[in-house]
Order: sequence, then C-alpha cells, then structure tokens
Amino acid sequence: MISKNELKYIQSFAHKKQWAQESVFIVEGPKLVEELLDSDWELEAVYCIEPWLKQWSQPMPHVTIVSEQELERISLLQQPNQVLAIVKKKQYNAPLTFKGNLTLVLDGIQDPGNLGTIIRTFDWFGGKQIIVTEDTAGLFNPKVIQSTMGSFLRVRVEVVHDIPSLLKSQDLPVYGAILKGSSIYQTTFKQEGFLIIGNESKGIREDLISLIDHAIAIPQFGGAESLNAAVATGILLSHWKGQ
Amino acid sequence: MISKNELKYIQSFAHKKQWAQESVFIVEGPKLVEELLDSDWELEAVYCIEPWLKQWSQPMPHVTIVSEQELERISLLQQPNQVLAIVKKKQYNAPLTFKGNLTLVLDGIQDPGNLGTIIRTFDWFGGKQIIVTEDTAGLFNPKVIQSTMGSFLRVRVEVVHDIPSLLKSQDLPVYGAILKGSSIYQTTFKQEGFLIIGNESKGIREDLISLIDHAIAIPQFGGAESLNAAVATGILLSHWKGQ
Repeated sequence: MISKNELKYIQSFAHKKQWAQESVFIVEGPKLVEELLDSDWELEAVYCIEPWLKQWSQPMPHVTIVSEQELERISLLQQPNQVLAIVKKKQYNAPLTFKGNLTLVLDGIQDPGNLGTIIRTFDWFGGKQIIVTEDTAGLFNPKVIQSTMGSFLRVRVEVVHDIPSLLKSQDLPVYGAILKGSSIYQTTFKQEGFLIIGNESKGIREDLISLIDHAIAIPQFGGAESLNAAVATGILLSHWKGQ
Repeated sequence: MISKNELKYIQSFAHKKQWAQESVFIVEGPKLVEELLDSDWELEAVYCIEPWLKQWSQPMPHVTIVSEQELERISLLQQPNQVLAIVKKKQYNAPLTFKGNLTLVLDGIQDPGNLGTIIRTFDWFGGKQIIVTEDTAGLFNPKVIQSTMGSFLRVRVEVVHDIPSLLKSQDLPVYGAILKGSSIYQTTFKQEGFLIIGNESKGIREDLISLIDHAIAIPQFGGAESLNAAVATGILLSHWKGQ
C-alpha cells in the first residue's frame, strides 16, 4: 500500500521544480532498477508489484509492494513497468580529468530524449564524462534518465557554468560539429580533447565557436537540412573511435 | 472559423484507425507546410493563423483562417505552430528499382520517433527508398511525419508484405546490422544493395537474418548494451557513404 503523501510526492517528479531541486530522482522499469541495485548508487525507496520482487533473489531495502493500479498512479511512464525507484543523486568527489579523455560538451541540447540518447551513445563508445551548459536539458528529468537506458550510471554528466574558461585552461584539441566544418571523412581525430555538440536548431553559440580548433562536419548527400543531434553525435563518435 | 465537424475530423487523426485508413494525413508547422507547398504532394486543406498566411506570397488554396485557440484545439502537437495541413497520401506509380540503389529495410521498428528520424537520416545521406515490414510503425502516424522534418517528401517508404521473397529475387548484396557482425571499420560497402535494420529490442527476425550475406556491427567500447536504432542507422550510413 502506498500513502496519499507518497503518491503526491512521487507524482511531483513530473515537474522540473521537483526533479531539479530534490536530492533524489525517479528511475523506472526492471532493467534500470536492476542495474541500479548492482551499482554504487543509493536507493532510497522501491515501489514494485509482487511478481517482480519475488524473482529478485537479493534482499531489497526500503521496498513497498504496490498493486498494478497503484503503480499506474505513481508511474511517470505511459506504460508503467513493474517497479519504480527513488534514487539519491550521486556526488562525485574526484575532479573531472580532461587529459587522456574525450570530453563531450553539450551546448544547449533541449530535447530530453536527445540528451538521454546522447549519453547512451557516448557510453557505447566508451565515453566517461560530459559537460553541459546550464540551458541543456536536466539529467534528472525522468525522460532523460529513462532514455539513457542506464548509461547515466557510467557516464558522469556535469553542468559547468563557464565552459569557455574551462576549455581555455586546458591545452587540448577542441572539436566542434559545424555545418561548414571539414568532412569527418578527411579528419584525423586525436583520442583526447573536447567535442562540442550544439543546440538542435541554433547550433553552437558564439563564445564556444571561437574556441574550436577543429571544425568538423558530416557531409550532406541528400535533401534533409540537418541531422538529429543524437544521430550526429553517434556518427562523430563512431569516426572518432574508428581510427 | 472552423466547424464542429472539421474539429472532430482533424482530432481523429490522433488515432491509428484514422491515419492508417484515410487517403489523407496531417502535417503541422510552417517549415513542413511550406516544403509541402513547394512539392508535388497535394494539399486538401490548410488551417492557419492570419500572421502566417500574410507572410506567404503565393496564392493559398483551400485555406481557413483560425484563431490561436482553434489551432490549439485541432493541433496534435504539444506546441501548436501556426499552421496545420491535410495532405493527400501520394501514390507512386513507378515500381521500386533496386539495381544501383541502397534500399533500407526496416524490420519492425516500433517507435514513431525512431522511424521518422531514420527517414530523415537516410534522406541526409541521399537515400531514396525504404521498404518496411507490416509491423513497422506507420509512415502517416503524425509523430512519424513530424519527426521526418520533411524527409518523407524525398524518401519513398513502402510496406512490403513478403520482404524475404523480394530480397531473394534481387541479385544484390544484403547487409544486416547484427550484434555479432563484422566491424564496420573493416567492412567495404558496395554502393547498391539492401541494409536491414531490426526491431529496437528483438533485432532482425529469423527469415531475414538467413538472407544476410554481410552481417555488420558497430563495435562496442563501453557499457551501454545497445544503440538507439536511429543512431545505429546513421552510423552505418555514414560509413557506407564515406567510402
């Protein structure tokens, strides 16, 4: 059974005010919650239907069994899926390290699905850290978390207030995806540095464009005016890794 | 002004029964509608707010001026955008031609956003035709049309009932994206043939897998278990075109 207060509290995470400010966030579905249970992220509460709990062999802390109907009421998904967890936002203690890493820089990615898919794609290619501008979609937006398919557990995503100063402070190559850049087919990628991906419609903003020393582009062969931001990121990363 | 019947009729396109069976479909937003007006696709009706109509210089057939409030009521978008059009589904008379083309084959892609983004990506890389299984998301689902960003005007998408027979009848290479395929970094792509992309969770079904003569894969470097279907398609097409 779930109390009225719990119901209200969980439902409030549909709103930015809640997921952005609280020290916890929502994760749903057996696959994600099972990955979480195997990770060093801390669960604060688990709400699940009985069949899911039964097939889980390890002890489950802070668990409440709910009915399908209750799950439907608390779930933020269109199709509720067995389990919902409240998870503590992780505090990373170690500073970000740029030397030897490719750091993805997201400049105002707006669509939560795009952000989640970019995190997932970066994880696929072995990426470890992403820095984002303050106007990028929020990591703890439930739509972002769900579309990472668990990759938020492996990729560290940090909001950085002054990215231009950060880039200037590092003696590393800065790649940026720009329509008029050099073809990726003719680019030799270094295995460390920064790769900047811009906003879906406005691209990369001025103060970052001026810091790019390798402007790159995916050549266009047909009529579409642009590529989806996550698709473009995947293509760039695939060429980066393929060398 | 818009009549009650018109309102009901347009709203009904939110449902599959309507968009799948009607001979027309819905397109929204100035960018898409303007591309349509420049194309050989036939518009049946246009509903727009006055400011949009005023800045359009050519004569506009079948137009109804609506208020912002009326547009909100008929729109299927979360953020209605100036204009909504009812468009006739195009009948292609010429048969599909496979020789000399890369034909994309979609086997049960379920997510409308994925399908739309795949069509857009294929268009970017100059692709012209896609064949899809009957259980793939429907092209005229408003979510698919909107996420193609206009690429449905340039890429022909056809449902084919018996894709295995079609592939067997053509003496062309069949590429398929499979987790255990050969690395795309070691693959030489021919510029004609078929490229099969499978369902988001189940992959390519048996009767198609057996027809693949070039099983290819995007190497995995990190922890993510899979790539988004549209991202994977983009990466494959980028390597196909880069040769």
